[in-house]
Amino acid sequence: MSDTLSSPPTQRFHLPPQSGLGFTIRRGQTLRIIDPQGEQVSDVTAFAQNDPSEWLSSGRSMDYANTIYLSTGHVLYSNRSRPMFTITADTVGRHDFLLTPCSPETFQIIYKNADYHPSCFENLAKNLGPFGIRPDQIPTTFNIFMNVPVNPETGELTIAPPLSRPGDHIDLRAEMDLIVGVTACSAEMSNNYRFKPIDIEVLD
Amino acid sequence: MSDTLSSPPTQRFHLPPQSGLGFTIRRGQTLRIIDPQGEQVSDVTAFAQNDPSEWLSSGRSMDYANTIYLSTGHVLYSNRSRPMFTITADTVGRHDFLLTPCSPETFQIIYKNADYHPSCFENLAKNLGPFGIRPDQIPTTFNIFMNVPVNPETGELTIAPPLSRPGDHIDLRAEMDLIVGVTACSAEMSNNYRFKPIDIEVLD
Repeated sequence: MSDTLSSPPTQRFHLPPQSGLGFTIRRGQTLRIIDPQGEQVSDVTAFAQNDPSEWLSSGRSMDYANTIYLSTGHVLYSNRSRPMFTITADTVGRHDFLLTPCSPETFQIIYKNADYHPSCFENLAKNLGPFGIRPDQIPTTFNIFMNVPVNPETGELTIAPPLSRPGDHIDLRAEMDLIVGVTACSAEMSNNYRFKPIDIEVLD
Repeated sequence: MSDTLSSPPTQRFHLPPQSGLGFTIRRGQTLRIIDPQGEQVSDVTAFAQNDPSEWLSSGRSMDYANTIYLSTGHVLYSNRSRPMFTITADTVGRHDFLLTPCSPETFQIIYKNADYHPSCFENLAKNLGPFGIRPDQIPTTFNIFMNVPVNPETGELTIAPPLSRPGDHIDLRAEMDLIVGVTACSAEMSNNYRFKPIDIEVLD
């Protein structure tokens, strides 16, 4: 899939393994999420800058795209059915929009791990807090590069290794001014049991 | 699947076609959703009575159940990863937790219908308003009896006729005191193009 954005990025961010970041982007800018080492997942969520009661909706987005696997050309909608992002490039083609960001409870319920464990939910909550977003407002995230096959008979989900290879990326064009939260995922299964960083570029 | 609840219901509600209802139920009570005529869908959502910032989360529920098709024995979780309902009986076994309640925009975007059309979203918003729930708080609903097969290769969704026959039901045991919103669905495709009522019982 061709990359039509050739000018240097306005901003670059490097997310260390098991971390998160909150920032704003303007309508028309492109958010590029890059997997520098391959097989890493990045949970993304967004809120309208002018009213954070408007949030990125997995249900609206999958409903209007009529698929669980969104890729180039698909629009990510808000709970108010307004476009928040358009996917303008995608070198992987497999992302998850079914599952929530891993949280402390994920590690207790799924991984049976009673000890402290970093999580995408905590990393989103911590980094979106300064923008006025409360933890309870965090919806189901768009889990970039996360590979979740579905058994069509039983509905059973498998958390498979991401299909992303080093340097793969996805481009999301902002369709409104947004507050964005992004992580370098903290869950063992999602990343094929090796924590890696995520690179972010914002392009005008 | 056996029905272990034999005492008469504490409350009964009849939802006419394309309508909705808001009400409260207490922890330990069972919410029975009945499809009296077959092939009808009922969108359900819930909020914690003591703090409506806690809401029914499709992402948490599918994540912890490890399936998109929840049925008897599965727990429906809140965004705070606390059990809201347990499915204690289910005579159908196929429900949807991917898609949002149909809204005015659904009929514009998917059905290309520019005129007014009743919708589950509007029916939920209208009936949950008196309980202090704002429309923006309505999450992806648990769409009871809705039949949405997934193509495992492409992720494409099909809205198929419900598998429910007259008298089929699902029982949801409340695991906390809840504000509940329920609809008799308004979308043509979901109900095999015939609008029908939904019956509700609350059992102690």
